[in-house]
Amino acid sequence: MTLADTPSGTPVHDHSAHHGYITDKDKYLNRLKRIEGQARGIHKMVEDEKYCIDILTQISALTSALEAVAVGLLDDHLRHCVVDAARLGGPEADAKITEATQAIARLVR
Amino acid sequence: MTLADTPSGTPVHDHSAHHGYITDKDKYLNRLKRIEGQARGIHKMVEDEKYCIDILTQISALTSALEAVAVGLLDDHLRHCVVDAARLGGPEADAKITEATQAIARLVR
Amino acid sequence: MTLADTPSGTPVHDHSAHHGYITDKDKYLNRLKRIEGQARGIHKMVEDEKYCIDILTQISALTSALEAVAVGLLDDHLRHCVVDAARLGGPEADAKITEATQAIARLVR
Amino acid sequence: MTLADTPSGTPVHDHSAHHGYITDKDKYLNRLKRIEGQARGIHKMVEDEKYCIDILTQISALTSALEAVAVGLLDDHLRHCVVDAARLGGPEADAKITEATQAIARLVR
Repeated sequence: MTLADTPSGTPVHDHSAHHGYITDKDKYLNRLKRIEGQARGIHKMVEDEKYCIDILTQISALTSALEAVAVGLLDDHLRHCVVDAARLGGPEADAKITEATQAIARLVR
Repeated sequence: MTLADTPSGTPVHDHSAHHGYITDKDKYLNRLKRIEGQARGIHKMVEDEKYCIDILTQISALTSALEAVAVGLLDDHLRHCVVDAARLGGPEADAKITEATQAIARLVR
Repeated sequence: MTLADTPSGTPVHDHSAHHGYITDKDKYLNRLKRIEGQARGIHKMVEDEKYCIDILTQISALTSALEAVAVGLLDDHLRHCVVDAARLGGPEADAKITEATQAIARLVR
Repeated sequence: MTLADTPSGTPVHDHSAHHGYITDKDKYLNRLKRIEGQARGIHKMVEDEKYCIDILTQISALTSALEAVAVGLLDDHLRHCVVDAARLGGPEADAKITEATQAIARLVR
């Protein structure tokens, strides 16, 4: 059994919830748990041959949920990794921004 | 247990694979099974506090996979529901196209 | 001088406004005229070194306006070319849908 | 004559081309000039009632060109405004990142 099968919001990883670059990690874990459920629901809709347009509506909702998670993680990344690198000075900040811009380009197109 | 927990490509639903509007239903079920795995993997990456940019790369890949499924389902929908309605004549085809256009608008923005 | 330099809504082309596949052609010409103005405005903002975030806001607005035109044209296309081909029967409808789906895929990703 | 030769694009602003936050401002001005030409071309295609799918292809190309400009400007913004604010310290960097994230969210959805 994988974590994907455990109840959402399981406390198993709370010990690590307050370190690392991610602000409010549990918020992301809960949103991603819902996203897994949405993906499972879309699989079920195709299996049951639900009406195509209704399946497309669910895919749009799932895509929006993923984009919201991506923008949130990017915000955390800029706020922590990039700002810290900028404060340390040196070429590190430039490298981190190049990397962030490439990630943004993949999300935008 | 849901089909989501069974091995991908299970024959359980083959009896229905050749009716309904979806061409090659098993292809979609397999792709959506992979998409569920990708969503589970992203949850795991956040849980393990993997590098933010690597998580964003996986989210972009998942979003692209979902968009490909949506475009495929839309193609099936136009090819079957919309064309059939057009052949039957009457206002049905117009209603189906309005509905399809709204779904496309949600996917595009 | 090109039509792009004439006042928006010029009646010059009204004689062609009621044939061809485009419903309410003048509506599209006016929207595309505004879109040209938006593009010109963004060029001016960069030239004047306006605040980057404000330029990005204008680019998002322009992209949304373009997507709305694209979805509208696609709707017209499905409603006319695709439905007509479906009514005529034969392989033509399939070819038109393949073409439409490819256009949708370019708009979605 | 094309609109590209109108007051915008004159050397008037060359003296400012090397200060301000935009790296290689002329590169952006040239790309935006091409973008204006693409918008004008799409207007012409609708006016001439060119084939719908060909118009959609041009709209997709224009949208991609705009997104590339947006990502480039955002990179400049992070590299200069955000990094400078981070180095100065204080709440300014956080405010700039919130603003940048909101701009990214508008580009992504």
